[in-house]
Parts: sequence; structure tokens; C-alpha cells
Amino acid sequence: MAPKDWRAPGPDPLPPVLRAALEVFARHGYHGASIRTIADAAGLSVPGLYHHYPSKQAILRAVAEATMTEMLEHTTAAADDAGSDPAARFDNIVECLARFHMARRDHAFVASTEMRSMEPEVRARHVAQRDTQQKMLEDAIEAGVESGVFECAHTADAARAVASLCVSIASWYRTDGPLSPDEIVQRHLGFARGMVGAARA
Amino acid sequence: MAPKDWRAPGPDPLPPVLRAALEVFARHGYHGASIRTIADAAGLSVPGLYHHYPSKQAILRAVAEATMTEMLEHTTAAADDAGSDPAARFDNIVECLARFHMARRDHAFVASTEMRSMEPEVRARHVAQRDTQQKMLEDAIEAGVESGVFECAHTADAARAVASLCVSIASWYRTDGPLSPDEIVQRHLGFARGMVGAARA
Repeated sequence: MAPKDWRAPGPDPLPPVLRAALEVFARHGYHGASIRTIADAAGLSVPGLYHHYPSKQAILRAVAEATMTEMLEHTTAAADDAGSDPAARFDNIVECLARFHMARRDHAFVASTEMRSMEPEVRARHVAQRDTQQKMLEDAIEAGVESGVFECAHTADAARAVASLCVSIASWYRTDGPLSPDEIVQRHLGFARGMVGAARA
Repeated sequence: MAPKDWRAPGPDPLPPVLRAALEVFARHGYHGASIRTIADAAGLSVPGLYHHYPSKQAILRAVAEATMTEMLEHTTAAADDAGSDPAARFDNIVECLARFHMARRDHAFVASTEMRSMEPEVRARHVAQRDTQQKMLEDAIEAGVESGVFECAHTADAARAVASLCVSIASWYRTDGPLSPDEIVQRHLGFARGMVGAARA
């Protein structure tokens, strides 16, 4: 399902039970979160919660899967929106990642910090989704190098570095902070373009 | 105490009790780590652990404080080593941060993810140490802009972005990975120089 506007992620699409669980994971960590605490936060009994999800691991899996799927949908929409111009594709993907990590801070925090808590199959799926994301960025960088608008010898490392930079926004961004989302996007676009050796204006 | 060689962080200087606690925090999270688990990992009884540290919070404080102090000592040594040339100072600080986050992966993970678990005073101290670190980077960027070797309109944001990039290395670096520490340093120096608009070779 393509998002209407990747520049405005809009309200969190997580179902309320998962949203409540996400907040508990973000505050206490996966191992510090009891099923009872999650049930309380979701306004359910413990059996009621188990009716929705058979285990805490199933909840983590559902949160990670929903978040990564949403991120990939947004990134795909952003890239498609740019057409075939590599610099425009790169810019749109970076902007999309920056905006997504401002809008989904808890999701980003839990998805990255609780990879340690994912069972192997869940973790493998999560890593595959993350790699798909980075590959879109890498493809845009490679296309930019081929067409001469970027100067970058290590495109896979650059894609990881640019993605890491966008993810890190989630760790400090506050809606009441001194910079507007547009300012943050513009500044990080500048940093990201510098990382791939974009021609300077 | 200045480190002998900031390029080679060497063995972890944490006392064994704190090293054991760090590993438990990294695996289970602060809230998921019981005093008993930490005592077991440290080869101590619970009263024996309490003899060293009065609370789990005191352990987290000691770990964070020791890690940030070591990082600041290394960064200061790296900057001093470069003398007054701003580009060399910037390069040395970036290299130091990159190497430190390869050598102290668990420390970096716990220090950044468990800020949520720090009591206000501990957190304030931690943030102040982190800000000192970023200010050293910012000063080098500003000096580079003034002397014309960097082109960067937002030096504080650039310092945060470059520091975030170096910190992120801890999240994926493996000693048995495909890139050597020297290769990782060189590639990230390239990305960091691009972020501050360094003159291209």
C-alpha cells in the first residue's frame, strides 16, 4: 500500500496494542518489559493480550515488521517520485529517511536497539528489510557516480553511513526543539550530499 | 591520565566488576538486568556486589562515567597530537572517535541506549561529557571554516552529525568483518570531510 505523501508520514499506523507495546519496549527495553506491563499499557488483561499475540517475541516481530514495511513503502514512494535522475533520487531517499526518523522515533529506537532480542528468524527478516532499504540508497549513489554527479569510491559504505546518519536523528530530535523538520532535512541533505561527493552548488 | 596511544585504545580499563555489568546491560538492557545476574557475571555474591556499588544505578553511573572519561582523554590526545592545523585536528578527532567505537562497542551501545535509564543527575553529567566531546569537534570545524579549508554553514549540526556517524560504527563493526580498522577509518574520514565541505584532493 503506497503512502499518500512520503513527506508527511502522518499518524502512526500501528494497531493500538502494538503502539502500547512499543512504548513499553522504548521505556524499559524488551527484556525489562513484562507481558503484564504491556497488557496494562494496552488496556487488556494478560489473556486478552495473548489472544492477540502468542508471545512477547511475536509482539516484537509485529512491531519491527510493521515499522520496516512502512519505511520501505515510504522510501519506494520517495524514490519513484524523483523519476530517474540519480541526484534527485538520492535527495528524496535521504529526505524520506530523515522525516521518517523524526516521525517514528520510538520505532527507530526499538528496531535498532532490540535486534539483540530478536529470535534468529525475526532478526534475519529485519536485517533483510534494512538491507533492501540501504540497497535503494546504494543504487542511487551508484547511478550518480556513473552519471558523474557524485564522486564516491565506496558506495555500499556510503549508503550505510548516510542511512546511519538519518537514523541517528531519531536519537536527538524533539518536536519542540530549535530546528524545524524542514531545516533538519535541508542540513542533513547537505551533509549527505557531501558524503557522496556531490558537485557543490 | 593521557593514553599512551589514542590510535590503539588497548585493553578495556574498566574494573572487572563493571566490565561484567556492562556485558549484562548490553545483553539484557538495564531494566532487564537483575543485580543477581550482574553479581553472577562478576563472580560475586549479591552482598559482595553491593559492597562495591550501592545500587544498579551506581553501576550504570560508574560505567558511563569511566567510558566517557576515557573517550574524552583519547579525543584530547588526538587533537593535541595534530597541533593547530584545523584539518589535521578534525581528521584526528574523527579517527579517534571511529577507532574508539570499534574498540568499545558494548560501552557505546549501553552509554547511548541507556540514557533513558539514567537518573537525572547521572544523565546530566553524561550529556555534559558528550557535549564537551562534540564541542571539540565543532571548534575544529569552525577553525577550518575560518581558515578556508572547510565550507560548512552549520558547524554545531555538522559536529553532531559527524559524531553520530562515528558512534554508529559500533552498531555494525565486527572484528572478523570484511574491512580492517584502517580501511574503516579511511572511508569514514572521507565521509566526514565531505560533510564539512573539505577541499577535495
